Amino acid sequence: MVKGILVDKKVIVENEEDANTIYNRGKYGVIKNRKLELSLVEALYLIEKGDLEVYDENENKLEFKEFMKIASERIPRFYTIFSVYRDIRSRGYITKTALKYGADFRVYERGAEPGKEHAKWILYCVHESEEFDWKKFSSMNRVAHSVRKTLLIGVVDDEGDVTYWNTTWLKP
Amino acid sequence: MVKGILVDKKVIVENEEDANTIYNRGKYGVIKNRKLELSLVEALYLIEKGDLEVYDENENKLEFKEFMKIASERIPRFYTIFSVYRDIRSRGYITKTALKYGADFRVYERGAEPGKEHAKWILYCVHESEEFDWKKFSSMNRVAHSVRKTLLIGVVDDEGDVTYWNTTWLKP
Amino acid sequence: MVKGILVDKKVIVENEEDANTIYNRGKYGVIKNRKLELSLVEALYLIEKGDLEVYDENENKLEFKEFMKIASERIPRFYTIFSVYRDIRSRGYITKTALKYGADFRVYERGAEPGKEHAKWILYCVHESEEFDWKKFSSMNRVAHSVRKTLLIGVVDDEGDVTYWNTTWLKP
Amino acid sequence: MVKGILVDKKVIVENEEDANTIYNRGKYGVIKNRKLELSLVEALYLIEKGDLEVYDENENKLEFKEFMKIASERIPRFYTIFSVYRDIRSRGYITKTALKYGADFRVYERGAEPGKEHAKWILYCVHESEEFDWKKFSSMNRVAHSVRKTLLIGVVDDEGDVTYWNTTWLKP
Repeated sequence: MVKGILVDKKVIVENEEDANTIYNRGKYGVIKNRKLELSLVEALYLIEKGDLEVYDENENKLEFKEFMKIASERIPRFYTIFSVYRDIRSRGYITKTALKYGADFRVYERGAEPGKEHAKWILYCVHESEEFDWKKFSSMNRVAHSVRKTLLIGVVDDEGDVTYWNTTWLKP
Repeated sequence: MVKGILVDKKVIVENEEDANTIYNRGKYGVIKNRKLELSLVEALYLIEKGDLEVYDENENKLEFKEFMKIASERIPRFYTIFSVYRDIRSRGYITKTALKYGADFRVYERGAEPGKEHAKWILYCVHESEEFDWKKFSSMNRVAHSVRKTLLIGVVDDEGDVTYWNTTWLKP
Repeated sequence: MVKGILVDKKVIVENEEDANTIYNRGKYGVIKNRKLELSLVEALYLIEKGDLEVYDENENKLEFKEFMKIASERIPRFYTIFSVYRDIRSRGYITKTALKYGADFRVYERGAEPGKEHAKWILYCVHESEEFDWKKFSSMNRVAHSVRKTLLIGVVDDEGDVTYWNTTWLKP
Repeated sequence: MVKGILVDKKVIVENEEDANTIYNRGKYGVIKNRKLELSLVEALYLIEKGDLEVYDENENKLEFKEFMKIASERIPRFYTIFSVYRDIRSRGYITKTALKYGADFRVYERGAEPGKEHAKWILYCVHESEEFDWKKFSSMNRVAHSVRKTLLIGVVDDEGDVTYWNTTWLKP
């Protein structure tokens, strides 16, 4: 079983072979200095799939529940983001983080290779009960447009189902 | 100069010839019993264009600014709706109301004739500072989809400029 | 031509024969002391149809435009109420005022005779841009329910079209 | 006693047996990867019934009042939605979310099984002090009509009592 250590807002897989195995399985995380760095969302997804065990700095194994609690304290909207991530991943899409776009994820077309090809969408994750204003909506759209990607908003409902909205700028 | 009277939430052009002239110029308002009934949005647009003079019940002429003030008291979101209407009309599109769709306007393709052809878009007018929730967003999309029209959201910013966004449901 | 005199918020037809003619034509107004008393809404409708001429106390004839201006000053929401009245009347329904219900009109089924039969609906007239709250909505419903009538809300849109909503209380 | 953890806008019941017990008792929440995910409304209802204990990330037990406070901060209109949910659930109806319809809940006839049968109603929860406009009202009706469900408006008063109104479009 592949082991990772929780450090702040990352889970690190130190064993080089394990790091590559996990990375290649679905382009999870990012390889840095031959180690794999996973976001907490990615890590929880892999824990749930049974592909990863995570330990804290005191070598205590963190079960799903424990890990989820810790992650929720460290990352705002953690479970909302996780719910959308789980949904889009389970549909066969590869996603990478999109911090520099101020969004939650870049999403690649099925079969596309991150690094070689560009992501098609940038994805924001929201919960159905979240309030929004049109300024925020417009600025999300402007960002997507400026990097030539399509804006995707993934709305999680109270049953954990995700609805995706595709938005484009229209010049009449 | 064509003259109209402001009553309640309408401007009435009583002279039959004038009524037809204005109506035919851009399908403004609706002819009822040989009189033209204009909405306050339409009337203000025509005042601004110099095509109409509006008087109140005491025969006082209402200038643009005064009319805007009165209309804003009578119609919620008047400035927002007027800003979008002015923008889309000045681009050569004909619009009709869309109460039955729960939206602000139906918009026809350039050159299309309302009544003979179907509107292509349904248009919601919002101000960028307005809040919305995803249920409202979802119902806007569902209505548009159920009547086979394209949803258009016209977002007015603080300078009165309008940006149009189109949203569609994406099933990944 | 039948003549009426505008007095306050009524139009009085004094000639007994004329009074009966108008009343019988569509159960307009109410006969009191052999005179016919019409509401301003009814009077404007009859003026527009060419069935009535109205004079003020100085014997000046009031044309549609003049009458409309005066009525709008005396009756709040006059043109909204008139728009719904014109619509429902033109569809062959007989309506009577509904002041004692706090509503705008009682509406009878086609062919029903007011006085002999009960009105089926009580009708509220609103303009599409009017804001409402659910307390007002609930209380309208409660009134209708308590007098065993069905609540009808007639919403006038910006083109003068009226949409009718039928509301009933549901006890799950 | 069944235990759940509050994370973000969900309560998670991790124990598989407990998860199934609660789910089967009234189709509460949704099973994802052998865990039960409850909305905050569902969780509070189960807390009130004495069927669930909820803990925060620091293992503090959240009593009804405290949970209500937290949920109200996270979910707009929480009290209104909870009041209607409690009322309709306590009458033996099963409800599911209705984000896709832009409404609050789908409601099934007594004894119907969600997933196998279709919901009969779509339900909007409103507080009597809430404002609405006729465009919103119109779109609520149109959505319900387009999916062949009956529109139900649950109006909560200041005592938390719920009155249900059904509206239909009437073409006179």
